[in-house]
Amino acid sequence: MGYGIVTEEILTALADIVGPTHIWTTYEKREACSRDETTTLRADERYLPEAVVAPASAREVSEILRLANSHLIPVTPRGGGTGLSGGALPVLGGIVISDERLNRIIEIDAENLVVVTEPGVITSEINAAAAEKGLAYTGYPMSVLSCHIGGNIAENAGGGNAVKYGVTMRYVLGLEVVLPTGEILTLGGKLMKDVSGYSLKELFVGSEGTLGYVTKIILRLQPLMKNRAALLALFADTETAIRAVPKMMAHGGIVPSSIEYIDAYCYRKACGFLNEELPMEGVEAVLLVEVDGSNQESLDMDIERAGEILSAEGAAEIYVADTRSTRERIWSVRRNIDEALRLTDPVQADEDIVVPIAKIPEAARGLREIEKKYGVPIANFGHAGDGNLHPTILKPAEMTLEEWVRVETEIEWDIFRLTDSLGGVISGEHGIGSKRKRYFAELCPPQNLALMKKIKLTLDPNNIMNPGKIFD
Amino acid sequence: MGYGIVTEEILTALADIVGPTHIWTTYEKREACSRDETTTLRADERYLPEAVVAPASAREVSEILRLANSHLIPVTPRGGGTGLSGGALPVLGGIVISDERLNRIIEIDAENLVVVTEPGVITSEINAAAAEKGLAYTGYPMSVLSCHIGGNIAENAGGGNAVKYGVTMRYVLGLEVVLPTGEILTLGGKLMKDVSGYSLKELFVGSEGTLGYVTKIILRLQPLMKNRAALLALFADTETAIRAVPKMMAHGGIVPSSIEYIDAYCYRKACGFLNEELPMEGVEAVLLVEVDGSNQESLDMDIERAGEILSAEGAAEIYVADTRSTRERIWSVRRNIDEALRLTDPVQADEDIVVPIAKIPEAARGLREIEKKYGVPIANFGHAGDGNLHPTILKPAEMTLEEWVRVETEIEWDIFRLTDSLGGVISGEHGIGSKRKRYFAELCPPQNLALMKKIKLTLDPNNIMNPGKIFD
Repeated sequence: MGYGIVTEEILTALADIVGPTHIWTTYEKREACSRDETTTLRADERYLPEAVVAPASAREVSEILRLANSHLIPVTPRGGGTGLSGGALPVLGGIVISDERLNRIIEIDAENLVVVTEPGVITSEINAAAAEKGLAYTGYPMSVLSCHIGGNIAENAGGGNAVKYGVTMRYVLGLEVVLPTGEILTLGGKLMKDVSGYSLKELFVGSEGTLGYVTKIILRLQPLMKNRAALLALFADTETAIRAVPKMMAHGGIVPSSIEYIDAYCYRKACGFLNEELPMEGVEAVLLVEVDGSNQESLDMDIERAGEILSAEGAAEIYVADTRSTRERIWSVRRNIDEALRLTDPVQADEDIVVPIAKIPEAARGLREIEKKYGVPIANFGHAGDGNLHPTILKPAEMTLEEWVRVETEIEWDIFRLTDSLGGVISGEHGIGSKRKRYFAELCPPQNLALMKKIKLTLDPNNIMNPGKIFD
Repeated sequence: MGYGIVTEEILTALADIVGPTHIWTTYEKREACSRDETTTLRADERYLPEAVVAPASAREVSEILRLANSHLIPVTPRGGGTGLSGGALPVLGGIVISDERLNRIIEIDAENLVVVTEPGVITSEINAAAAEKGLAYTGYPMSVLSCHIGGNIAENAGGGNAVKYGVTMRYVLGLEVVLPTGEILTLGGKLMKDVSGYSLKELFVGSEGTLGYVTKIILRLQPLMKNRAALLALFADTETAIRAVPKMMAHGGIVPSSIEYIDAYCYRKACGFLNEELPMEGVEAVLLVEVDGSNQESLDMDIERAGEILSAEGAAEIYVADTRSTRERIWSVRRNIDEALRLTDPVQADEDIVVPIAKIPEAARGLREIEKKYGVPIANFGHAGDGNLHPTILKPAEMTLEEWVRVETEIEWDIFRLTDSLGGVISGEHGIGSKRKRYFAELCPPQNLALMKKIKLTLDPNNIMNPGKIFD
């Protein structure tokens, strides 16, 4: 398909829509939109848009999209730029729509337990505003301090609390979406239930900005849970650790807010980085379990029961964190994995596979085998309660970058084929984007892919909306 | 569009697919598929299918749909027949696909916290099977003892626990769906997170059987919560009652498993029916609040705190049910509303509106005005935590049936326009079906309806799949 280019005439038309101070063609602004946080991007992988525009309303977005649609110009929505799959990269040039002027929390409506917001708000700001009224937005991606809520919608972001609180989609009660052809849709509302017609808003959640541009979001809020309790459980093998997870939930009647899994490699790296003197000897897998609620005594009982079950199920040691400082201490280990790995292994590829929970040990064993096959370390950690793992392939210092690019691709194929064979999928919360689409093309069942393409064509007949993502 | 009829030749072909003992053309079998539990159906509103077939596999369903598609025969899926919107009625004749042979729970997989089931299983049977392993399926429609899980998927069923546990969609991890054109799709899996491509499975949830036939379902299970505590709060006015709901949640940090609303009319009727001597004087609105969890002491504290907040917010009286028998007693009032109303007012129309929670008092006032305007009583109860109300229009004994049919339609229009003006929608959990499609055609924004129709056409180009539902 031949796309048009952003001519002087189109730039003038865009300036008429958003105002001359909200359109940019400078190298600096375009360069800032050329990358995200995808770790596999090489220094030369820059995708420069031809222009960046910042609309301030659904109407302006609609006019931009009508213009782009009539001139066949690719349009790429961009939020906080924290994506890990290249979803916000203008891989075919064209126009980037920045959400920097769609950045207001419109309303924290405590009576209806909802927030109404524009897409360009940082997710943690929603939480801060909600907390003032005793409420919380419990969708909680790990990049919560810098990602934008619009990006969370686009990627159906998950995170470390999904085992209890689910992922972004659970909280989306309403959306205002501009279709690639310019129509403005209002879907849902401040409504906790709605079966009046098809589940349209869910179709946009997780569509990676390929079906429309979201201009307004209504999210359900929950009571803010002020109390927490946590524990760290050390295991001599992964299988024992993972088998204990469903038992803790079913036997204990406990739904933890987090069940994080850390392999020996990450555990040692993070503890080393922190000068943390936890036992290392014989530890192969670590679980970090946290419960939250409104009643500290009941949480303390829950975490004690969780610890008892994990011990009975074979944990070698349990550290209950019953004060804020001990809780911080064990969370530090989990939170510093990324930084610890980056310090010693700056070139890496981070993955986002999901398998059935009980298949985590098999996935871990398979990853060890892949590691041996290529002689390349793969650190492994993630969200055990969700079966969502983030294997991180680390370039050995002595390997050339050229060799790395080749080997990394081969390793990714091996990881994804392993995942597929375990009944899993290649992305749980980061998305397919541009990064994984070649793998997705092969691993997604052809009839599913065909249906996705039909839906895309129905909504975006000229394929102008974030092209080059998910599938071609 | 001209549909074909089920000829002898087609009957033979169907018998070849499902076997001669699993196809019926007898009046008895067809009649049994001609109605559901929609209360507004008149005695003469029977929709007889031409044939009923009971396939036993996705492959058989696929062959039936290919056959029907090539001969343009309408196909209507039927589950437990408990629907309240005429979704399972073969309004254009054709073939009814019964799920009576797709009735196995394939697996309770406690290690992965999921159930794999066919669509024809009664929802409560899933719960019974899960409970044996300390687990629960927490999607909980009020018809749980007779509805089929396939119907729950089709309608995205809600119920009385949605304020804490959400509606059916939250639990759907995987679906096997046969498209109207015969392709068999496998969507999702035993996966707690999945952002690999569009949210296809969500498109089928709540599509009322108009986009495909679901042959296999993977649902997430939760730890079984064995303990409960409840209270009944009596209020002198609706506004005070409803205002207290978000405060109880935000100030108390409590997410109740149920917050049911009962108006004075229903409260008196149900108490009268049960010979229950609760105070009546000056009561305009009643809230029933229940909390569940694994720890009885903590629940008792929660329910006490909920009671304190409700009192502080203006409840005239609070009855805490701290034993199983007192809890049963207050739940009886809620559960017997339907039966109490049917006893004295056998002809009725039950609605299913949703409004923002804080708009419930306005909705209640509006319903009182409509009641006065027509001189027809409207009982009102529902799920206060979800803003989901079930106004039930009761035919006065002296009104002729002819007059009733006319007045009922006018009242429904008034109720739906009121709902629309409050930012609500006309169905929260029962669906549009055949019952509400004329209202939906007018109240759904035209561009949303246009998109739904485009999606329908993409998946079902000959409109054979449950035609005459949601929209024409």
